[in-house]
Amino acid sequence: MSETLADLASLVHADLVGDSGTRITGAAGLDTAIEGDIVFAENDLALEKAIACPATAIIVGPKTNGTSKPLLRADNPKYAFSRILQLFNPPRPIKPGVHNSAVVAESAQLGREVYIGPNAVVDEDTTIGDGCSIGAGCYIAHDVKIGANCFLHSNVTIHHQSVLGDRTVVHSGTVIGGDGFGYVNHGGKHEKLLQLGNVVIHDDVEIGSNTCIDRASFGSTVVGRGTKIDNQVQIGHNAEIGENCIIVSQVGISGSVKIGNYCILAGQVGIANHAILEDGVTIAAQSGIPSGKRVRAGQVYFGSPARKIEDFKKQWAALSQLPRQLGRFQELAEQVAELRIQKAAEDSAQD
Amino acid sequence: MSETLADLASLVHADLVGDSGTRITGAAGLDTAIEGDIVFAENDLALEKAIACPATAIIVGPKTNGTSKPLLRADNPKYAFSRILQLFNPPRPIKPGVHNSAVVAESAQLGREVYIGPNAVVDEDTTIGDGCSIGAGCYIAHDVKIGANCFLHSNVTIHHQSVLGDRTVVHSGTVIGGDGFGYVNHGGKHEKLLQLGNVVIHDDVEIGSNTCIDRASFGSTVVGRGTKIDNQVQIGHNAEIGENCIIVSQVGISGSVKIGNYCILAGQVGIANHAILEDGVTIAAQSGIPSGKRVRAGQVYFGSPARKIEDFKKQWAALSQLPRQLGRFQELAEQVAELRIQKAAEDSAQD
Amino acid sequence: MSETLADLASLVHADLVGDSGTRITGAAGLDTAIEGDIVFAENDLALEKAIACPATAIIVGPKTNGTSKPLLRADNPKYAFSRILQLFNPPRPIKPGVHNSAVVAESAQLGREVYIGPNAVVDEDTTIGDGCSIGAGCYIAHDVKIGANCFLHSNVTIHHQSVLGDRTVVHSGTVIGGDGFGYVNHGGKHEKLLQLGNVVIHDDVEIGSNTCIDRASFGSTVVGRGTKIDNQVQIGHNAEIGENCIIVSQVGISGSVKIGNYCILAGQVGIANHAILEDGVTIAAQSGIPSGKRVRAGQVYFGSPARKIEDFKKQWAALSQLPRQLGRFQELAEQVAELRIQKAAEDSAQD
Repeated sequence: MSETLADLASLVHADLVGDSGTRITGAAGLDTAIEGDIVFAENDLALEKAIACPATAIIVGPKTNGTSKPLLRADNPKYAFSRILQLFNPPRPIKPGVHNSAVVAESAQLGREVYIGPNAVVDEDTTIGDGCSIGAGCYIAHDVKIGANCFLHSNVTIHHQSVLGDRTVVHSGTVIGGDGFGYVNHGGKHEKLLQLGNVVIHDDVEIGSNTCIDRASFGSTVVGRGTKIDNQVQIGHNAEIGENCIIVSQVGISGSVKIGNYCILAGQVGIANHAILEDGVTIAAQSGIPSGKRVRAGQVYFGSPARKIEDFKKQWAALSQLPRQLGRFQELAEQVAELRIQKAAEDSAQD
Repeated sequence: MSETLADLASLVHADLVGDSGTRITGAAGLDTAIEGDIVFAENDLALEKAIACPATAIIVGPKTNGTSKPLLRADNPKYAFSRILQLFNPPRPIKPGVHNSAVVAESAQLGREVYIGPNAVVDEDTTIGDGCSIGAGCYIAHDVKIGANCFLHSNVTIHHQSVLGDRTVVHSGTVIGGDGFGYVNHGGKHEKLLQLGNVVIHDDVEIGSNTCIDRASFGSTVVGRGTKIDNQVQIGHNAEIGENCIIVSQVGISGSVKIGNYCILAGQVGIANHAILEDGVTIAAQSGIPSGKRVRAGQVYFGSPARKIEDFKKQWAALSQLPRQLGRFQELAEQVAELRIQKAAEDSAQD
Repeated sequence: MSETLADLASLVHADLVGDSGTRITGAAGLDTAIEGDIVFAENDLALEKAIACPATAIIVGPKTNGTSKPLLRADNPKYAFSRILQLFNPPRPIKPGVHNSAVVAESAQLGREVYIGPNAVVDEDTTIGDGCSIGAGCYIAHDVKIGANCFLHSNVTIHHQSVLGDRTVVHSGTVIGGDGFGYVNHGGKHEKLLQLGNVVIHDDVEIGSNTCIDRASFGSTVVGRGTKIDNQVQIGHNAEIGENCIIVSQVGISGSVKIGNYCILAGQVGIANHAILEDGVTIAAQSGIPSGKRVRAGQVYFGSPARKIEDFKKQWAALSQLPRQLGRFQELAEQVAELRIQKAAEDSAQD
């Protein structure tokens, strides 16, 4: 496969600097590029590397000067690069059909062009939309609704009554719709509170590997459209997560948490139950939001328990100098004691 | 299905306030209730909601005043609600039998009324008790003993020699009896220390999704009766966990930790190896208990590393005001310096 | 099976103290030993236990005095014990062959003496080396290369183009080669950045249960020879981990992190993207290394965010006494205020 730079420029709405007939045969990273590739230079340092590496052309931001290699200048150069990557690396076509080792209930409804992999199981009254791919060893329980063009990797479990929107991607080992963690104490024993709700995942959500999203006790645990969830994330019962959020690996979101749109939760963050994050909130890595806490729109929080990042930084700087300051404090206390003794001596001399 | 309020009151030993013949057709949460439902009001705010929602009757605590809707007054109203939920939502009956895609060793012994789901594997010399349900894609290794009425969801792995008590519930993707993490350094390499023990889970334990409980190096890793474990928890080799504990998602319990009865470990807590938690200890979210530390019965610990929660709170409050106090300290140091200069000047004037 | 102490001494190059003809029939832990067993005493306390327990002989360090029981004195007694454990507990032999429920693509190449378990799937153009064991329910995607004598437990997923060295052990539920977590924002949506690289695991690596190692965006995510990884660890795209590292449970390693040889990451540690750990670095449990941070060879870091452990300890000690010191500071401030008032009064009296 080969494209001219002119065609690529047109595809991604970029300005072309250099020979428009240059032929591009692939797209790659700076460390892996070969001749014929187009690469992406995120900043000046990357641009130097891009010029020095074997790549043939470079995607850059709109204000970059010309170089010895042809350039595509794009307003959002990373997105332009992403589009060109997709052009050169189309998805491996799925081969529609149900593998003969798969077990699909008679009452299940499969859309057109659906692939059900080896040893996958689709239980009763479940609906799978057009163009879906269900990987090897997946278990889709009864009464599940999966939209169109979803891709479930291997060994995924989708429990009963879960609803997945169109183009949902679920990576391997993930469990959607397991019971929420709810008990009531009775006579010293933890008796199970039935978890009768479900999980609703809206369109264009991607969910990493070995993640868990629990069903609601009543109603739904919800993940909004376009939200991206990394590996080993835990989302508790009745949590409601907005649209276009980024939830990084090993985050734990407790029950009944509400998260707005465009929030970012960095790695290993914990959000305790009933906390509320308004739109556009960012929580720094390993931070913890206490139970019931409300974080206002657009704020950045850090620490365990978390506070506003500017407060965290001041406290952190203060803590860093605390051992030295406590030494100085001791000195000062001695000086004051001495002054007081002198004063007392003077006063008593004057009596 | 429909019950009179009188019958429900009798079932859960509650006082009935209102029309005893009121017919109840379901139980639900405050946000999902429809006419005919009974709901649970945990506090005054919930009671207001309960009165305003379409539900027909309300379960409340023993001292609640009458309202416009019939009430069931129970000593433990949440438990009463839980019982009524179970009444209206009986478990989906399992269909005993071994799915024709399952692989069960000839030497395995299955009890009566056992269900083995599609593509599940039960290896040699394993015993599965009466009334168990083994989900799709589970792998039960050789020489495992599973008690009666256990429920294993899908894609669970139970490694060899594990012992599960009666009514154990294991959610999807969980791994019980994997090797403990033990090596010995020899010539700069980490050589594996064989892990020859097993895992013993006592009766009435529930274990969430994608959790790991490692086998002991020798002897047993133990989870006591009635303990409830959430998703993505890690329990290391030779840990011993008591009865009726609550272990929340993403907790990590290292090797040889001992945990008493009725302990609560909140989300993302870490317990380092050989630590000891006596009965009734609570560890707050994201806290870390250092290696070998003993936490006395009934104490609450917080922080990383954790200390008594009252100490944590004092230190936290102090840290919060530290930046301001360091500014005041600087001022004070200047005042003392000035006093000392004045004093020195006076002393020298008197010479 | 039974060996003389003399034969065991010879096997592990230990000095024998006592009757060389003593017959040993097993090796065990101090709490599980029976007559005929040899045990390992790590320290004086363990030695007392070893003498008191039913074991017949004891492995000790080179300078231990004689006891009432025969001893093997070894330079590395734990390793000697490990070797003897292996002698008495040979691995359960695998039964080469492809289970009739497994699904192996025609284009896949299996080495000699390979076991493919029930319901395992091996996809197109994948190579599996001699002596490998692929557990029940594993999914090995297309174009994977697995070296010789690897052992994959159950329900493992190995995604396309992954490369595993010889003697790799992968525990149940682990996912290798899932997509890295990469998106580019375009018009308010997170568009997926294709993840076109792979994962390369070198020889003698062991990987715990429910762990995730993501494929690189370009190039490879790499785990060096002899590194041991515990359960529920997350390793992001393009991370490069050196040789003989120890990575404990629930550690999260972000994208493009570089870790040297012989590093130790304790439980629940987080390493943010582009951080660099030089050789021999140790990170204490629950600590967080910030994005881009370089930790110099041999250093030990602690805290979130982490600093040198000696700084952490000083700050920690200072914080612990802070509440009391702030009280003293308040007193001191009052004393200084009083001195200043007195001084002002004196000065004004002298005017």
